[in-house]
Amino acid sequence: MTTLESLLPSTGVAALSIGLIGAGRIGKVHAAAIVGTASAQLVAVCDADADAADDLAYRHGATVTSAADILADDSIGAVLIATSTDSHADLVERAARAGKAIFCEKPLDLDVARVRACLAVVEETGAPLMVGFNRRFDPNFRALHDQIAAGVIGDVETVCITSRDPSPPPMAYLARSGGLFRDMTIHDFDMARFVLGEEPVSVSAAGSALVDAALASLPDIDTAAITLVTASGRIAQICNSRRATYGYDQRVEVHGSTGMIRADNVHESTVEVAGSGGYVRRPLQRFFVERYMAAYRAEVAAFVRAVLDGTHLSPDGDAGLRALVLAEAAARSHAERRTVDIDEI
Amino acid sequence: MTTLESLLPSTGVAALSIGLIGAGRIGKVHAAAIVGTASAQLVAVCDADADAADDLAYRHGATVTSAADILADDSIGAVLIATSTDSHADLVERAARAGKAIFCEKPLDLDVARVRACLAVVEETGAPLMVGFNRRFDPNFRALHDQIAAGVIGDVETVCITSRDPSPPPMAYLARSGGLFRDMTIHDFDMARFVLGEEPVSVSAAGSALVDAALASLPDIDTAAITLVTASGRIAQICNSRRATYGYDQRVEVHGSTGMIRADNVHESTVEVAGSGGYVRRPLQRFFVERYMAAYRAEVAAFVRAVLDGTHLSPDGDAGLRALVLAEAAARSHAERRTVDIDEI
Amino acid sequence: MTTLESLLPSTGVAALSIGLIGAGRIGKVHAAAIVGTASAQLVAVCDADADAADDLAYRHGATVTSAADILADDSIGAVLIATSTDSHADLVERAARAGKAIFCEKPLDLDVARVRACLAVVEETGAPLMVGFNRRFDPNFRALHDQIAAGVIGDVETVCITSRDPSPPPMAYLARSGGLFRDMTIHDFDMARFVLGEEPVSVSAAGSALVDAALASLPDIDTAAITLVTASGRIAQICNSRRATYGYDQRVEVHGSTGMIRADNVHESTVEVAGSGGYVRRPLQRFFVERYMAAYRAEVAAFVRAVLDGTHLSPDGDAGLRALVLAEAAARSHAERRTVDIDEI
Amino acid sequence: MTTLESLLPSTGVAALSIGLIGAGRIGKVHAAAIVGTASAQLVAVCDADADAADDLAYRHGATVTSAADILADDSIGAVLIATSTDSHADLVERAARAGKAIFCEKPLDLDVARVRACLAVVEETGAPLMVGFNRRFDPNFRALHDQIAAGVIGDVETVCITSRDPSPPPMAYLARSGGLFRDMTIHDFDMARFVLGEEPVSVSAAGSALVDAALASLPDIDTAAITLVTASGRIAQICNSRRATYGYDQRVEVHGSTGMIRADNVHESTVEVAGSGGYVRRPLQRFFVERYMAAYRAEVAAFVRAVLDGTHLSPDGDAGLRALVLAEAAARSHAERRTVDIDEI
Repeated sequence: MTTLESLLPSTGVAALSIGLIGAGRIGKVHAAAIVGTASAQLVAVCDADADAADDLAYRHGATVTSAADILADDSIGAVLIATSTDSHADLVERAARAGKAIFCEKPLDLDVARVRACLAVVEETGAPLMVGFNRRFDPNFRALHDQIAAGVIGDVETVCITSRDPSPPPMAYLARSGGLFRDMTIHDFDMARFVLGEEPVSVSAAGSALVDAALASLPDIDTAAITLVTASGRIAQICNSRRATYGYDQRVEVHGSTGMIRADNVHESTVEVAGSGGYVRRPLQRFFVERYMAAYRAEVAAFVRAVLDGTHLSPDGDAGLRALVLAEAAARSHAERRTVDIDEI
Repeated sequence: MTTLESLLPSTGVAALSIGLIGAGRIGKVHAAAIVGTASAQLVAVCDADADAADDLAYRHGATVTSAADILADDSIGAVLIATSTDSHADLVERAARAGKAIFCEKPLDLDVARVRACLAVVEETGAPLMVGFNRRFDPNFRALHDQIAAGVIGDVETVCITSRDPSPPPMAYLARSGGLFRDMTIHDFDMARFVLGEEPVSVSAAGSALVDAALASLPDIDTAAITLVTASGRIAQICNSRRATYGYDQRVEVHGSTGMIRADNVHESTVEVAGSGGYVRRPLQRFFVERYMAAYRAEVAAFVRAVLDGTHLSPDGDAGLRALVLAEAAARSHAERRTVDIDEI
Repeated sequence: MTTLESLLPSTGVAALSIGLIGAGRIGKVHAAAIVGTASAQLVAVCDADADAADDLAYRHGATVTSAADILADDSIGAVLIATSTDSHADLVERAARAGKAIFCEKPLDLDVARVRACLAVVEETGAPLMVGFNRRFDPNFRALHDQIAAGVIGDVETVCITSRDPSPPPMAYLARSGGLFRDMTIHDFDMARFVLGEEPVSVSAAGSALVDAALASLPDIDTAAITLVTASGRIAQICNSRRATYGYDQRVEVHGSTGMIRADNVHESTVEVAGSGGYVRRPLQRFFVERYMAAYRAEVAAFVRAVLDGTHLSPDGDAGLRALVLAEAAARSHAERRTVDIDEI
Repeated sequence: MTTLESLLPSTGVAALSIGLIGAGRIGKVHAAAIVGTASAQLVAVCDADADAADDLAYRHGATVTSAADILADDSIGAVLIATSTDSHADLVERAARAGKAIFCEKPLDLDVARVRACLAVVEETGAPLMVGFNRRFDPNFRALHDQIAAGVIGDVETVCITSRDPSPPPMAYLARSGGLFRDMTIHDFDMARFVLGEEPVSVSAAGSALVDAALASLPDIDTAAITLVTASGRIAQICNSRRATYGYDQRVEVHGSTGMIRADNVHESTVEVAGSGGYVRRPLQRFFVERYMAAYRAEVAAFVRAVLDGTHLSPDGDAGLRALVLAEAAARSHAERRTVDIDEI
């Protein structure tokens, strides 16, 4: 929320020097978030694509360097890892051993065993690690979470998450994505954990390739329904699609013993037109940069604050692992047409 | 929709004489619907509870009699069966053999084999049979269905049905109900079939007793999540609860290849109050009599019109069977923790 | 609100026999309302157009007769006057002298002096008189009124009434209508009085012929803005148009010392479609028969109940007069381009 | 709207050096907007309150100086005047003579004659002048304006503006404010002009002191209804209050020959809670800093762009004058209880 106070940078406080590893689409978003955080400084940028790194560094007044130099630079307190997924775990381990505070984009890896090994290194080194589940920092979902925690709907009973992208990514991306559950639903698994208030113990998933039949050749799916159940019987349903003609559809509804709470989408504007064809509101905000910009800013701010304060980072590596385990269980459930217990993974 | 024309009874048309078997809660609703239908007459009423029959007959100027007499009366063209579930199949068979047009409340029976046997009799006699899935006649759901059929969202991909009762029925009712899937979800299974545009081929269900832990002793559940999949991969998700503190929660959302359509709840009024605590709208209409009164009227009107016109009744006995098969499959899926193919039932 | 109880006619209660004078459009609406009221009977109908009277009487099983016969018939306890405006005052006086309870459509007359004379007769005879301001009985506006009375927004400060017809009536009707303020805004004046909680003491009005420039020749207007002020300074704003492409636009918003309350429109259904062009809801209910049918029923029911109970009818003749005085003041304000005090009229 | 592109500052473009005169509440808002504009630089700050100037300058890396020095500094291309109203006209004249591009907060002065004299100086010098009607840059109102201009509702017929502050300013402020019409409604007058598409030719206003009866001693009012009429008969209604317990209530609805368009408020979040008391949404964003932050940013960006491009600034001094004339006419109408023609002022 914008307030008069929020317009003013705090002064005289310690600032966290951050090196950004990865200057692609999401790296640019994080760079803007860092630059907008009063107690943080973007000091260095690196990317396999030198032009991308140059461009981003130039715009924000940072140095272009390499990941190795960032990790070796003692004046840099934290790294933000926004490279492609296959390099995340290695970079996290190297950064942990270099004594950096670490923010890593999700997922840590597509392989559960690799994530466990990586987290063992993190634990051994004691490095602070935060995983980029940006939706937890969306002001609407955060308010929903906080009100549930405050008891406004009593005990949580069911969670319904609608999560639809406006259009599918390129086939090349999809081929390396790990599949819908690990690439897209993983955000919804984390959201389910965020609001359920209890760990899921079993997963059941169904899925189809309805948007693009060619996905079946990967094989992959673009439409899915997933059901999670916790030990006490709380239920979460997730509805996914890689396509939504009306914008980025991101909703959460939670039903509890004394009421229901939901966070709705954000439209492009509040304008509505009425005519003989009815009442027309604008489509939703187009995609994640529009919808979650405030979330990305709040996420980086939370990271910086917690690192400077020395408090525990959240969501941490364990949250990253647990969401991936749910994705793995969903993939297995879909393949074997049965309910899969989390303990199997 | 109320229009000036709808206020005027048609005159000079043939009228269908209807005998009502069952004068309980739902029988009263149907009696009012019959009386409000210009081309129908409520001529006879019977019920095991003589007082209930007397009362209802007296109010609407009908005769109190027995089911046997209704079936034997050649001046009665149709029967409306609103007794307890365990008598439905027998009454349908007797009415079919007596040459009546038949409207029977759902379900025909809790047992799939019994329903199949009953429908064999119906087929053999050629009796017109309609099953009481009232929600198909709700103006909102009807409009949703018709717009999907008109192609406004392209090909259907996913269906999300939210269906929550305001509060659970008494334990005595629940003990004879056949369980959540056969008693409550059966309406949602029919709604899913109504809008999916393709038959489900598999079912996966999860459920819990969260509203009343005592249900576990029946055993039964009061909270459920069900996923249906069709041959081409269309997916329907159903979310059920026996409790909703804010009223009778009945929503359908359908996502297709070119858009999304949804029918929302109806609030007690359109009044909204804003104050320091926020903006407050009224709760939803309380329960089915309030929410679905227009649907009950349209349903009886459709029955009467089709009988008088000699056209096929819909939803018919097969629809009743198919919804029950889905309920049976859901129960088995829940028990065996696996996806159940419809062919198994 | 439909409830199980509301479906059942009360029995064994005294019934009010009603004669309907006027079988045109609004007469048909009232006939249907009378027939649907358990403790009322529509026994006689008359109209200058014999076919209209025949048709309506036949449909509802009433006798066709004349106004004189209705007034002379001692078995008829009440009359409902739904003729053209110019006959209202005469009929009210004759009915009052005949000892009938009277329901008269608004307005009693277009001339303030004629209304005053008519009400003098009503007072002298002691006849119960109710004037047809149907909107007071709309469930949404009634709920709004009752909540204001219960103090949910504190002291009323401003009232904003939006009132737009879907399309203008024929020129022939308009020529005899008394002009926008007396014909259309009169409902809004009554609504303002209903919710202001204090009598307006001055009126200021502006108006234009934007929908049909030919109106200027009458002269009349089709678009208007009226401001009412009460003694303590409460303010009501009314916005009128004879045209709204999206349906019958009827809203009331009231702002008070501790909050705001509003009653919104009713759409044709709750269905909403989302696509690349945005989110589309259905237009509003088309016009008054659709929007206010429940109000017409509640209005007749309130009339019948009060007559049978012997309680004061409301809104009464004085309400009819006061709304007309506001219309008169608005016309004068518009003509003279100044604020007009009610006392002037 | 946030997009990936909007995150990136443009580089290599000419930047406009701006001196900020006034470091109070609104000055801080503008300072943040300037700092967030890629092609602008906040180089100097001055304020009668040295601490306020020091603080703001320090936070944004600007120099603390005096208005005289800012005006004398040739390296400064533009000034942003955010001082108290009584100094606006003098500063605008001095800045115009100093050859600066000028952004001045509304109003230029509370006196029409003084504004006219000031604008004569501006015209004589040819200085580019923009007046701070921030609401024109609100994304919602801007979209509404643009869609009207694109013809989506046909010809404009009526405009309804709801404008309520959350709570009244201190009595000391009110005493110097020029009264409700000049201080608060002036924004609504500008908005009416922005969307009417035609100049108002007459004004009628009513007002009361309902929030704080002590206002009558100034004299002033805190609640008002104003009606504007254009030459062709278009009508605008404005509803004002100094109090709204549910937040900053800022809505515009425009009705045209083929439809209606409206821009709604912005709530604190999209979260809604349903329980036995109904459905509760969050209050509105609290006040102008929250609601109009995007507008302030867009406004400064538009100023900077137009100055750098050499295009005409809008809204210009004439817009400031015309809104003030409407305020003057409203005050006279309120005092004299009659419709006041703009030509009188």
